[in-house]
Formats: sequence, C-alpha cells, structure tokens
Amino acid sequence: MRSRLLRPDDIKGAWAIVPTPATENASDWRSENTVDLDEAARVVNGLIDAGIDGILSMGTLGEAATLTHGEKLDYMRAIVDAAGGRVPVFVGTTCLNTRDTIALTREALALGADGTMLGIPMWCAPALDVSVQFYRDVAEAVPEMNIAIYANPEAFKFDFPRAFWAQVAEIPQVVTAKYIGVGTLLADLAAVKGNIKLLPIDFDYYAAARMVDEIDAFWSSGAVCHPLVTTSLRDIVAKARASGDWAAARALQARLGPTAAPLFPNGSFKEFSTYNIGLEKARMDAAGWMKAGPVRPPYHLVPEPFLAGARKSGTMWADLGRELEREQSTPLSLEAIP
Amino acid sequence: MRSRLLRPDDIKGAWAIVPTPATENASDWRSENTVDLDEAARVVNGLIDAGIDGILSMGTLGEAATLTHGEKLDYMRAIVDAAGGRVPVFVGTTCLNTRDTIALTREALALGADGTMLGIPMWCAPALDVSVQFYRDVAEAVPEMNIAIYANPEAFKFDFPRAFWAQVAEIPQVVTAKYIGVGTLLADLAAVKGNIKLLPIDFDYYAAARMVDEIDAFWSSGAVCHPLVTTSLRDIVAKARASGDWAAARALQARLGPTAAPLFPNGSFKEFSTYNIGLEKARMDAAGWMKAGPVRPPYHLVPEPFLAGARKSGTMWADLGRELEREQSTPLSLEAIP
Amino acid sequence: MRSRLLRPDDIKGAWAIVPTPATENASDWRSENTVDLDEAARVVNGLIDAGIDGILSMGTLGEAATLTHGEKLDYMRAIVDAAGGRVPVFVGTTCLNTRDTIALTREALALGADGTMLGIPMWCAPALDVSVQFYRDVAEAVPEMNIAIYANPEAFKFDFPRAFWAQVAEIPQVVTAKYIGVGTLLADLAAVKGNIKLLPIDFDYYAAARMVDEIDAFWSSGAVCHPLVTTSLRDIVAKARASGDWAAARALQARLGPTAAPLFPNGSFKEFSTYNIGLEKARMDAAGWMKAGPVRPPYHLVPEPFLAGARKSGTMWADLGRELEREQSTPLSLEAIP
Amino acid sequence: MRSRLLRPDDIKGAWAIVPTPATENASDWRSENTVDLDEAARVVNGLIDAGIDGILSMGTLGEAATLTHGEKLDYMRAIVDAAGGRVPVFVGTTCLNTRDTIALTREALALGADGTMLGIPMWCAPALDVSVQFYRDVAEAVPEMNIAIYANPEAFKFDFPRAFWAQVAEIPQVVTAKYIGVGTLLADLAAVKGNIKLLPIDFDYYAAARMVDEIDAFWSSGAVCHPLVTTSLRDIVAKARASGDWAAARALQARLGPTAAPLFPNGSFKEFSTYNIGLEKARMDAAGWMKAGPVRPPYHLVPEPFLAGARKSGTMWADLGRELEREQSTPLSLEAIP
Repeated sequence: MRSRLLRPDDIKGAWAIVPTPATENASDWRSENTVDLDEAARVVNGLIDAGIDGILSMGTLGEAATLTHGEKLDYMRAIVDAAGGRVPVFVGTTCLNTRDTIALTREALALGADGTMLGIPMWCAPALDVSVQFYRDVAEAVPEMNIAIYANPEAFKFDFPRAFWAQVAEIPQVVTAKYIGVGTLLADLAAVKGNIKLLPIDFDYYAAARMVDEIDAFWSSGAVCHPLVTTSLRDIVAKARASGDWAAARALQARLGPTAAPLFPNGSFKEFSTYNIGLEKARMDAAGWMKAGPVRPPYHLVPEPFLAGARKSGTMWADLGRELEREQSTPLSLEAIP
Repeated sequence: MRSRLLRPDDIKGAWAIVPTPATENASDWRSENTVDLDEAARVVNGLIDAGIDGILSMGTLGEAATLTHGEKLDYMRAIVDAAGGRVPVFVGTTCLNTRDTIALTREALALGADGTMLGIPMWCAPALDVSVQFYRDVAEAVPEMNIAIYANPEAFKFDFPRAFWAQVAEIPQVVTAKYIGVGTLLADLAAVKGNIKLLPIDFDYYAAARMVDEIDAFWSSGAVCHPLVTTSLRDIVAKARASGDWAAARALQARLGPTAAPLFPNGSFKEFSTYNIGLEKARMDAAGWMKAGPVRPPYHLVPEPFLAGARKSGTMWADLGRELEREQSTPLSLEAIP
Repeated sequence: MRSRLLRPDDIKGAWAIVPTPATENASDWRSENTVDLDEAARVVNGLIDAGIDGILSMGTLGEAATLTHGEKLDYMRAIVDAAGGRVPVFVGTTCLNTRDTIALTREALALGADGTMLGIPMWCAPALDVSVQFYRDVAEAVPEMNIAIYANPEAFKFDFPRAFWAQVAEIPQVVTAKYIGVGTLLADLAAVKGNIKLLPIDFDYYAAARMVDEIDAFWSSGAVCHPLVTTSLRDIVAKARASGDWAAARALQARLGPTAAPLFPNGSFKEFSTYNIGLEKARMDAAGWMKAGPVRPPYHLVPEPFLAGARKSGTMWADLGRELEREQSTPLSLEAIP
Repeated sequence: MRSRLLRPDDIKGAWAIVPTPATENASDWRSENTVDLDEAARVVNGLIDAGIDGILSMGTLGEAATLTHGEKLDYMRAIVDAAGGRVPVFVGTTCLNTRDTIALTREALALGADGTMLGIPMWCAPALDVSVQFYRDVAEAVPEMNIAIYANPEAFKFDFPRAFWAQVAEIPQVVTAKYIGVGTLLADLAAVKGNIKLLPIDFDYYAAARMVDEIDAFWSSGAVCHPLVTTSLRDIVAKARASGDWAAARALQARLGPTAAPLFPNGSFKEFSTYNIGLEKARMDAAGWMKAGPVRPPYHLVPEPFLAGARKSGTMWADLGRELEREQSTPLSLEAIP
C-alpha cells in the first residue's frame, strides 16, 4: 500500500519539515555516521503524536547536500520505520544528476518512503525543458514513487515559472510541491489545474487559505519548534473556512508572523539562504522541542549575530506554543483568542 | 614523484581542459558506463603528443556533475594512465559537501592524479569563510594532493573576491586556479603574492600576458578542437615576451578572438552558462579533432540555434588550426603572420 | 477642499492609471507640444462617468520621464480641469533630485492636483535612509500635497523593504501607494499600521481582497482599455465581501487573469519593464476605448512580436468588457456570472 | 574652433573628472545656487596648470542628477571660461529623455563646451536599439557637439555590450568614452574599429596600456586629489611604452592600486555605487587639493564608516602625490622609482 500513488487530495493539513539530527561531532569532516538516529525517530514519532499530517525531509535544512550516501539510507530507514505508515513520509533524493537521483529514489522506495521531495540538479542553472524532463525521467524510472516538487529558487538556480508548473502537472507522480510565497500562487494554481497540491509555508498559510478556497495544506519548519503552533494554525483556518469568520485565524497569524523576522539577517532573504541550514538548526535547538544539533561541513560556519536572531525566532515560536497550550487548556475556545 | 606537491612555478604553458567522452547512448538515463575510455585515452595522448603542458578535467564541461561515481573512477584511471606521468593531470572532485569531496579526492590520489580541479559545494551560496574553510579542510585531509581552484562564479554561486584569493593563497596545496577574466587579474595577483599560479582562458591569454609579466600559463578548452592553435598561442606569446615585439602575438589573437563569439548565444554569458556542457561538446565535435559525444542527463537538451553557433565556433577554431599548420610548414616564421 | 490632506480611508475603490495621450508625431525628437490635450480631458471625463474613483497619472507608462516640463504643466492642467473635483487626481512629479521634485510638486499643487504619485530619484540606487528622507523632504516642502508612494522596483532601483514602509507611514502626507504584488502585502500592511492605503494592481485585487479585509481599493491600467471591467471587479468584490460568497468574484478573476499573460514578453517581467511604455500604449490603443498614441523618445522602439502580445492583451480586456456589458444588460445579476 | 568635431586621436593623456563644488548649505533642499563657482574655476585652472589634458564633468559624482537647470548652466559657463580653450571641456547633459537632453546639449554648445559626457535616460532599462538610437538622435540634433559615451552600467541599467559599441562607433560625433574595467577592453576595441577612444580609469591605466598599444588616454577622478599622481601615471606609461621597460610604471601602479581599496565599502562595487557621490566627495575633500563640499539631496546621507574609508583613500592618494613631488624634485629620474 505504501507504493500506491497519492492524489493531490490525499495531501492535507500540516506537513512538518524536519532536520536531520546530528551527533555532537558532525561539523568535523573526520566524523562518520553523524545522524542521531534515536532523535530522528523520536522527532517523527512526536510530530505524529502531536497530530502532524505528513513528513518532509532531506531538503536544504535537512542537509541533503552534506549527508553521505550511507547516512542518507540510515536516516530514511529510521524515519520511515518511526512513522510506521501512520502518515506519509517524503524524503529528499536530490542529487547532481538524473541517474544518481534515480538510483537514490529507488533506494528510498525500497526502504518504504512514500515520496521524494525532489529539487533539480544545480550545477548548471536548468533551462525550462531541462527541469521538466528531469522530473519526467525520474517519474518514468521510479513510477511508484510520489514526487513533491521542491521549489527553492536559490538552491536550484531556477525561478519555477508558470510554464514549468503547467508541464510538471501532467506527470502523474508529481502530487504536491513545497511551494514558496503567495505572489504568484493564484496563477500557478491555474497552471497546475488541480493536479498538484501546492503547499505554502506556515507563515503564508493564513493568507493563502483566505485567498484560495482549495488551499488546505501547508509545510512548516516551525513544527519542530513546537508542533502545537503548526496544528493550531491548521485547525483555526479550517474552522474559519467552515464558519466564514476569520477573526481568530487572523489573530493567530498576527502572533505568528513576528516570529519570522529575526530569522532573516538584516531582513534579507539572500543572507538567510546563504546560512539557511545553520540558522534553521539554531532556531530549532533554541526552541527546545528537539535537538537538531551541529551543521555538517562545509555549511557549519555562521556569523554569531545571525545565529542570535535565529535563536530568538525559535524561542518566540516556542513561547507562542506554550501560550497556546495554556489557552487551549482553558474553557476559552480558539475563537476567543484576541 | 606523483605525490609531491607542485609549486606555482611548476605550472607553465598551455593546459588543456578536456571533456569526458561519451558513448552514443549517454543521454539516456538508463545507460551505464557511458565513458568512452578509449577516446579518453586517445585524447590525452594526442594532446601530450601535440605539446600540451597539463591536463584539467571533470569540471563543468567535463561533466563532473553527471558522471556516476564508478564512471568517475574509470575515467580518472584512464586519463592518468594515458598521461603516464608525462604531464600533470588534474581531475575534478567537486561534490555536494566536504566529506564526499575528501573521499573522492583520496580515490583520485590513489589512482595517481596529480591534483584536483576543485569547485565549491553549490547547494547553498557559500559565504567567504565557508569557501575558504572548505579548501582548508580538503587540503588537510589529502595533504599530498595539489589543488587547482576552480573559479566558476555561475556554477558555485560565489564571486571569488579578493579576500578569498588572499586566504586560499596560504594553503600550500593550492597551487593554481582555473581563473576567468582579466578585469581583476592584477589585483588578484597582488592578493595571492605568488603562491597561486592564476590561469586565464586562452582567449584572454594575450591580454593577460601583456598586462602581467608573470603570466606564463593558461587553460584552453579549444585545445581539443585543434591543439596547434593552443600551443601556437603559448609559443608566440613566449617569443613576444622574449623579443619585446608583440605584433605577431597580437595578430594571432586577432584571428583567435572571433572564434569565441558564436559560442555565446545572443552574446550572453548567462545563456552560455545554462547550456555550457552541450555547447562545448557540440563545438568540440564540430571541430573534428576528437569525439566528445552526447551530453549526460539532465543537461542534454540544448536549443538547436545555440548548438549551431557552438558548431561554428568549433569549425572556426579548427580552420585556424589548419591555417597555422600550413603557415608553420612554410619557410615563413611565426613572426611573419600578418 | 483641494488642499486638504486625505486620510487612508478616503482612498477607496477603483483608481485608473492613465497614459499621457500623444500626438501623431510624438516619437520624433523634433516635436514639441506632443500631448493630445483633448484626448486627455476626454479620457478623464470618460473614466469618471464610468464610475472610476480616482486618477493616477505620469508614472512610467504616463511618460513622466519623457514629457518636457511645459508638457507636464499643460497635461496636469488639462486633467485636473477635466476632473473638476469630482474624483481625486494624482499626478507624477518624480524628478532626478529632491529640489526639482519639490518645485514640480508645488506647481502641481498650484494647478489643483490632489496629490503626487511619487517615485524616488533613480540615478543612483537609493539607500533606505535616502529614500525615506526624500519623501520626508518633499512632504515638508509641500505640506498640502497628498503623496502616493510609487513603488516600482525596476524604475527606482529599490526593493521597498518592510523598514521603508514602516518609516514613510509616519509621514502624514503619505496616504496611499501604487503597490505591486501580494507576496509581502500582509507584512507590509502590518508595517504601515493603517497609515497608508496600499493599492494592489487590478489583476491582484481579488487575491488581495480575499486575503485582507481592509483592502478595498486598487489601481488599474486596464481601466482605459474598458472601464467596465475595472468597475465590475470593484463591485463584485464588494458584494462578495458583504455576502461572504466569493464565487462570482472568483469567476470574474478567472476571466480577467488570462488577459495579462500576453502583455509579458516570454512571460518575463524584466522584458516587460524594458518596454513598459510601448507595450502599455499598444495594449490601450488596441483595446480601442482611448487613443494613447505613439511613445515619446527614447522609448519608442519596441520589438514587433512584443507589441503583438500587448495588443492581444488589450483586445482580450476589451472583449471581456463587452461581454460584461451584455451580461449586465440582462436580468442576470453579477452573481450569476459563471 | 570650439565647435569642430574632434577625432579619436585628439583625445590623449590624462583627463580629469571633476566634482561640482558645493556651497556649505548644499545638502539642504531649501538652498539655491549651490555651486561654488569660484572653486569650480580654480579647480579647472589648477588642473590645466598641472598638465591635465582634458576635463570631464557632470557625471554621477559631478551631480548631474541633483543640480538644477540654472545651476548646470552657471557651472558649465564657469568651467568653460576657466579652461579658456586650453584643453577640451566635456560637460554632462544626461537627462530623463531625448528631447531634454538635446535642449541641454544645445545650451552647453552655446556656452562653449567641447563635448558632452552623455549617459542614457535611466527611468527604464534601455534596450540595445533604444540606447543606440538615443545617441544617434542627440548627434543628429546637435551635430557640432562631441560626445563621450558615459558607460556606467549601474546608473544607466545597461551593460554596454559589444553590439552597442559597434553601432555607436558609426556616429561621427561619438569620439570617446568614459569606459570601465579592462575585462572586455580588447574585444570592445575591436568593435569600435578605431572610431572611439576608450578611456580606462586611472587605476586600470597601467594594465590597459600594457595590454593594448593604442591605449594612450584615461580618466581620473583622483586628479583632483593630487594631480601630480595622475600626470605622473600618464608620463611614466609613455616612457615605458617608448623604452619597452615597464618596471617603473609597474612600480607606480603598485603604489597607486592600494589607494582604491578603502573607497569601496566592504570591497563591494554595488555599495560604492549606492553612495558614489558622497564617497567621492569625501575622498576629494580629505585629500585637501580642492573643496568638493557637501552632497546635494537626496544623496547626502552616507554611513560614517563608509565615509571614513573614502577619506582614507583620499589621504593615501594625496600622500602618494607628495611622495612623487619629493622624488621628482631630486636628481633621481622617474625611471629610478623602485
């Protein structure tokens, strides 16, 4: 059953993006077996217990770039086994070329992963037809594997234009996408014609959900900072949509939004992209819900002031989570959140 | 002797950049063992017989991104053996992270390669200290391996600033660099303080050599289009420097320069970068001196008009080579070239 | 009354952006007095008769760059007089520096303009404090003039970051903004704290209005292609907001959206920006509602295939306008639009 | 005689770029007549006395953007009169469009200017044919005016490609160009076929002159920091070219080069471009040879640490000038400079 292709409607709710937990010595190039497999299993289990609907892993902050091949396989096995089929698990299999990607995707399928969160080989900036053919080839080679397009313009030197979405939407295996921004969401949704469930980031979920009736799922790297924030966002939006009263959802968004700001050094997305991994792991460690651990080389060097901002972002998220815990344990309903 | 570190002064003359020759089916993701090892050996041998001073391989056009690990090892072995110690052979070992790079560099060393032409992991844009530490770590891990910095801003999302050159110049293993442009050459040379031999491209060699007395080596992807053009450029510049009369060198540059133009679609370096591999291989195949063969996926799709320009560039270079053959077989000396 | 400062809540509904109609010889640098003043007055009058709520003029497509000083004054007078106080008229007074801008803004005020749609001097890319101080200085110098921030990143070499919005929001004269995109709308709205009415483009109005309850105004360059499309969009969104049923609004957006695509050469916003004026004027002329006329030098040269796309965009908009005419003349209500 | 068109060979030696000296209150938008006309005349006279071969003015650092029309005319008159025909004087007449540029260029001609240092209207990024036609139109309209192409990619949103140079080279009035960089100098020289004298910056003059025999002129914003550095550079290169011994020229370049570094904040050309005017004027004022004075709005706000670097650059240049004074007053010839 794990090998069955999902349909876009099967992708629902809050999908957590998880880091690959690292051992203490993971920043040293001499280290091997740097994945903290116990923590990896604990995190996946905890997210599912907290009500998360799906797992995305081994993207940028998941260190797909810096894990060795053996570590990747060990990690995939750990999180697939931890999930135990309770929610879909997508792993990243992005490599530097088509053939290596296919080989790794086949291994992921054999290990029981439901899908791959798949970016585009990034040595050369891909032309439109190169990018589309890449997804076609992987889908043809591993037809039982679900594909989530990993739409990261900075990593993959590609701006994911309308024509791209229109064309990959015709590949049956492409079922969802880790999408970014809401600026072109409406037009891109028109392009995919219902064949791909586009997932906005948690920070954009309120805006996306209000803007588009079909948006009922999102991804969240904040989930591992405190999953209750992520699931509350999902639930409050669902209630708002059902009732037509968006006040409580907007209020939650107003509390959530400010936690993003300190994550971006000098307000710059470009700076954030350069230090993405270190910033996200520092944010997660500061939140205290999980132990993301050190960054693998060569990306382990991050300016301290930037890390301080990331940690602040993490503690703000965790604080919000604790506030939500208190609020939800009282007779006050979610709608009463100011 | 192969394990001895080179000094910058050991890097001299014309260094050929070679593609990784491909079998007929190499664009198909189903194909394995796509390296034409016989052609690889023939090319290296032919270049050395033609007087080329060193070999650079497995950069962008050498398809370091798209060869499988097994193919890389087979290819390294083939060209190292073909060279047989007659000239230094640098192979590319750029991977997505520090540890994989170290592992591959160690394998290259074990196979007898003299050095690695090494770019920077390119999933995230590297900060300055990330890029420098990466080279330090590889040098520390494989201290017997010479390193050529592979300074490609488009591939590695890095602009190789002055401070980078100043810092990597302190790593003993970093002996040379595949450099690009002459706009900042003088300042970058000041930064490296004689510790790195910067290699300009063949098209810039005349300008660089006139501008800077120390410039006595360059890289040439045209060498495999017709090596005589490359070696003639080297020799005519050496004569000019010795005599102080640069007229003949300038005349050769005036014949060489125009062959570059059709290689760049719409005069755009950005477009060239997107289709780099396909354009260079088409250029080489059109020149007829070697058989570069098809491009490996996902980069095998290139617009036909762009390919036509690349082929024109290749035939122009080969035509110039044949003209030089005729001229050099007559009593007229090189200096007499109009 | 004209000198009274507006409040953000005074900016409501559909604001038309108008071109500066040109005489037949306007592309020739020898021509003087190239403004078709009769057409200018006719257009403003027609827009107001059609129910448009405000006029924005002399931005990029309004050729603020290429009108002579005398032409600007003549044109301002013509449109202010045509409006006759029925709706607010904002004119563009962007110049190459602070002092020229102040002088022109004072002239505009004296001519009866309600506000200036004001961009930033664009010879040098402005730093954040340069941009904010510029608006402060103009506001201080011409305190009775309302200011609409003209937020065009391509023209003004500025990305209009969050901190900019937060700071200009404290200038009382800054009442509104010709805003672009919805990707950062929510965060920018939070930054301005209700002190600036941000106007999205017509193509984004549906999305913005769904996303944010406060969004009740937008700008439209399509208004001069067929004003009924613009006013219908305004009205159908207002009805949707009142009723909570957005189906009809979404249906109109689905018909409107596709008219944008052919305006962008190769789907590129950068290409569009380069030929902005010529493309918009061709679009408007093709729609047939007004006569925008030739483009003033040096921007009068536009590739014919790009113009063809722009004309298609214009006729599609006009066709939609005629369909809406028919639909609205039948007993079927707007809500019945499929 | 002033109206005679120059030929490329008439442009020789060291051309000084001058700022427009400002009165103490020039940063205040309330100020009028902010040009210090006495200082302007003194500077031009002093440069000519020091042996400078030509004057370029009213580019970016010359504040063409921020001078009022009246100030421009006053300033042009002042420097043309000060030069008194002893050396050619080019003034900047770049405006936001073709017609304003023509009108101002005609005024400049009437005031006796020899030429215009002319950039491209910069509201929209110019397409290639837009940029070329702009120069054609100005040349046709003011046929007696010499034109120096002002090739500043940051200011004019244009990368001045090969095809541009090939086409403007066919306009007789286009005689020279304030050029930047040496990376594409050889190819651009081939494109202009001897019809345009390309002027590199002082910092690149040694490299350009070694690289290309025809390069015998350059521009220098350092000239107003201490003209002897600029004229020494000119003379030492001329001697080197005549003798074939470039050692002394290289030695001077090695002393000159480091003065550039602190002018660029964090080594960034982009940052420099943003604060160009303030940095250059601070550099000049710190050098002490002239009084450039405050920056006109809106560009008068510059971070203090950046200004400190600029001042250091100015004092380093002035120090070098004083060293050269001492060296040249001793029996040691220039060739003896180590």
